[in-house]
Amino acid sequence: MNEFELIQHFFTRSACAQGGENISLGIGDDCALLQIPAEHRCAVSTDTLVSGIHFPDQAPAFLLGQRALAVAVSDLAAMGATPIGFTLAITLPQIDADWLQAFSEGLSLMAQRCSIGLIGGDTTRGPLALTLTVMGAVPTQQALLRSGAQLGDLLCVSGALGAAAAAVPVVLAEIDRHTIPEATLQQLLAAYWTPQPQLQLGHYLRGKAHAALDISDGLLADCGHIAKASQLCLQIQQAAVPVAMAARQLLGDSAALQCALSGGDDYQLAFTLAPCELARLQHAFPAVQVIGQVCAGAGVQLLDAAGQSIVRSYSGYQHFN
Amino acid sequence: MNEFELIQHFFTRSACAQGGENISLGIGDDCALLQIPAEHRCAVSTDTLVSGIHFPDQAPAFLLGQRALAVAVSDLAAMGATPIGFTLAITLPQIDADWLQAFSEGLSLMAQRCSIGLIGGDTTRGPLALTLTVMGAVPTQQALLRSGAQLGDLLCVSGALGAAAAAVPVVLAEIDRHTIPEATLQQLLAAYWTPQPQLQLGHYLRGKAHAALDISDGLLADCGHIAKASQLCLQIQQAAVPVAMAARQLLGDSAALQCALSGGDDYQLAFTLAPCELARLQHAFPAVQVIGQVCAGAGVQLLDAAGQSIVRSYSGYQHFN
Repeated sequence: MNEFELIQHFFTRSACAQGGENISLGIGDDCALLQIPAEHRCAVSTDTLVSGIHFPDQAPAFLLGQRALAVAVSDLAAMGATPIGFTLAITLPQIDADWLQAFSEGLSLMAQRCSIGLIGGDTTRGPLALTLTVMGAVPTQQALLRSGAQLGDLLCVSGALGAAAAAVPVVLAEIDRHTIPEATLQQLLAAYWTPQPQLQLGHYLRGKAHAALDISDGLLADCGHIAKASQLCLQIQQAAVPVAMAARQLLGDSAALQCALSGGDDYQLAFTLAPCELARLQHAFPAVQVIGQVCAGAGVQLLDAAGQSIVRSYSGYQHFN
Repeated sequence: MNEFELIQHFFTRSACAQGGENISLGIGDDCALLQIPAEHRCAVSTDTLVSGIHFPDQAPAFLLGQRALAVAVSDLAAMGATPIGFTLAITLPQIDADWLQAFSEGLSLMAQRCSIGLIGGDTTRGPLALTLTVMGAVPTQQALLRSGAQLGDLLCVSGALGAAAAAVPVVLAEIDRHTIPEATLQQLLAAYWTPQPQLQLGHYLRGKAHAALDISDGLLADCGHIAKASQLCLQIQQAAVPVAMAARQLLGDSAALQCALSGGDDYQLAFTLAPCELARLQHAFPAVQVIGQVCAGAGVQLLDAAGQSIVRSYSGYQHFN
């Protein structure tokens, strides 16, 4: 099976290549063609995942396919965009039909969940790495930027944090998974391998949230991005940060809180909006939690129950440190 | 310098991040936002270049930056699309400020030539590899597909072929460059490192050419793609194929012809159109050459001066063979 047949067999014919009505031309020509509805912008984001850095070398292909696309689509959710299509550049050490079959099935599953179609890509030989570029549409002037936070906004997150970071030692087999209660184990693995892009919430927040992003580098680091872009201070009540139950069960409260604050990979949304929006929002999305507020100043302040600033050193995941 | 500063320093602030009016939001948020003009489609293509496979491990960074973007933008040209923006996912073995400086300068130079802006990307650590996704706009119904060739069309190429393939042994230092006349050497190196995407021609061919693509796998293999997609036969008069002078000077006529027929990397366009379009086309683009025609049947036929079919085995470059 040559390169062209390989691509055709596993991707072109797979369910993930079935796009929606806004894919005018899919895989097989020099370019794909997308239809961006009138009064919309085309939202674009690229993510690279490298074996041994962003996922374990022995990652299960079916789960990796799901995770790779979920991580990329999460950026569309954070922008309030509706997914349309994605390209996949995959670098493979060799052809392994079983691996490709499982990977493409995982990719297809997440593609269907997110209503996004594979529109092209490239296959090359080398150490396993994936680069996905996702494209969607968002109404002009309604995209959720990092730079729009306003004084007096509430700071919210879309759900509990920390499970994906807590799962890392399990995924890496540094913790024997047989020592973990089955329900906890499944929650941890699901958090790591199959995060669910918050597309419905992102859509709802169009024109309502003043600033938003997805938490990929860790809550504190990502809130720092909003603070910097908006030139304001984000205050976080530490006690209000929702910590995933599975993380607490595995690691205990203190370490789980650390995962929630500084671990990445949960792909929940963090966003700010006017207090008057909160009741309707939480009615529609009960998992949303208020964790703080936007105030004058700069950077991120983490506050204890007495309102005192907790000094901690934190940083997002940075590959070259 | 951490990862974020690295990206910001070399790419965000560089000239290549200066986009045109259709980039509503550039680097720095979860997504970039592009404006696709009314009655246009968004054209998208992805290319991956891996060190040691698509370019020599010791490739000069300034030239590599130019070539990587040119190769990607060529797919927009082949579609008749006007470039808007591109993302760059770059995997680097380490931070090398000199290398990044030179690479980003090369990238910026080609970005300016092609009027395309850097809108995002990702930087990760690993063996050197580049994935570029380019986006542009093409009027609805005027995109140049591979599938539209019609019986009786002329088959044309946009210019001389073979120089880039002939240059490979020079680029790899398998031929001592000091043995090559300076003018020839410069033409060969320019063909390999700085191919010029045929954007003006692609734009002109909108609504005129019936089928088109860029020659990346080699003339015969790429004409095979048109033949297959259009379900017709493409006949090529071997004597009509324009062979680059520099290739002939380096390799002699026979080997240079082989480069023109089967070597890739020239990024000229191959296209078919009605004979009545030819005179105006060649007036506007004198380098365009008619090399054959579209007829009933399947596949590609290479014909000698007597009209007899030349049997040869050929194939495009395939990484997994």
